[in-house]
Amino acid sequence: MQGTRQPTSPPAAYSPTDRTVPTRSADRASYDKELVHAILDEAYVCHLGFVRDGAPVVLPTLFARVGETLYVHGSTGSRPLRMTGEPDPGLPVCLTVTHVDALILARSAFHHSINYRSVVVFGRPRAVESEGEKNAALEAFTEHIMRGRWAEVRWPTPEELAATNVVALQLDEASAKVRTGPPIDDEEDYTLSVWAGVLPLRVEPGAPEADPRLPTGTPVPDYIADFDLSKRNLP
Amino acid sequence: MQGTRQPTSPPAAYSPTDRTVPTRSADRASYDKELVHAILDEAYVCHLGFVRDGAPVVLPTLFARVGETLYVHGSTGSRPLRMTGEPDPGLPVCLTVTHVDALILARSAFHHSINYRSVVVFGRPRAVESEGEKNAALEAFTEHIMRGRWAEVRWPTPEELAATNVVALQLDEASAKVRTGPPIDDEEDYTLSVWAGVLPLRVEPGAPEADPRLPTGTPVPDYIADFDLSKRNLP
Repeated sequence: MQGTRQPTSPPAAYSPTDRTVPTRSADRASYDKELVHAILDEAYVCHLGFVRDGAPVVLPTLFARVGETLYVHGSTGSRPLRMTGEPDPGLPVCLTVTHVDALILARSAFHHSINYRSVVVFGRPRAVESEGEKNAALEAFTEHIMRGRWAEVRWPTPEELAATNVVALQLDEASAKVRTGPPIDDEEDYTLSVWAGVLPLRVEPGAPEADPRLPTGTPVPDYIADFDLSKRNLP
Repeated sequence: MQGTRQPTSPPAAYSPTDRTVPTRSADRASYDKELVHAILDEAYVCHLGFVRDGAPVVLPTLFARVGETLYVHGSTGSRPLRMTGEPDPGLPVCLTVTHVDALILARSAFHHSINYRSVVVFGRPRAVESEGEKNAALEAFTEHIMRGRWAEVRWPTPEELAATNVVALQLDEASAKVRTGPPIDDEEDYTLSVWAGVLPLRVEPGAPEADPRLPTGTPVPDYIADFDLSKRNLP
């Protein structure tokens, strides 16, 4: 509108839609962009859903985020995703990421649960066509797997870029859902003598295992030796 | 057929279908029941896909396996799953589970990947209606979260069972997909001096955190104190 001042920074939250307001535990939902980004960036795979012959298909898929764009490896059994190159607006997908943070051990069987952080994104991806954007997507995939790696490895050839099937999904209809904290038991159960609480779970890296064909004595780079999952996506 | 001897044990593998033969890396697919069971049993959540208004929805969902039946919490935002109580054959779903086992650090950006184990199950779940089967499903959920827990906690009341929304999905059209081993680089890249190999990832439990309302001194049960994720589903 005329006279409306442009905001100086992008909005900090996604707009809720019918699909991103949960039917249950809506108080656990969040549309905060920073939270959505953090949950996505911590995951190595997403679960990508699409419809084939009227039935759902959900496949684990490599992905990476660049700003408000998710690049998704389109090759994972996803013949239908290639339809996104067609003039139609693209195949609808749902991209979901989940971290299991703790086991919730309640006093009653009924209230057992998990603490988790999840993100659900709805949209219609477009096929990435240009060599430049495909290269950027492969850089994002590589850095998503291991920050610092791109600078050291052999970069993609034109042939590899041509063989790379990537789609781009805009972060627009997106939400997070988070459960934290202790069990929530029925009031009368708090007098039971059963131990209750949470058992945290975390993902830990093991010792790096050198490729059998690597020359003996090749040093492990610092970014691998010092790898800290909790910091891997911090710049 | 007359004269055909019945096998003395159930078949050890699921029959592949058009949907469970991957379009890529088909050599990584397996239909072995024991492998499919082990991958499912190790996961705390599945990603459940269904179709709503023509578009896919993928939600993280608690589940547990009992023999060849998967019990799935039907309450997770899944209004459509309740249709399984209708006379029609039920809503088609796809239930997927993935473990990320290692980061594959290749010599070329193009060959970066992960080692993983995943299971994909297609089917049409039925609503669990009887109190007895709902109780069995809640026992399975509780024991799936923490083996040994059911014997100690307060069991479900008839009211809780009535409020429990569970669907049952038969393991029939199911497959696993597994990648293991080192990076697979292009032959000419093996002479590059970049470190290559795998970085294993594993899920580890932290120290149990008592509920703030637990009386001080309540002992942590052995099955929690000695919890070993790698053994949690062994009888």
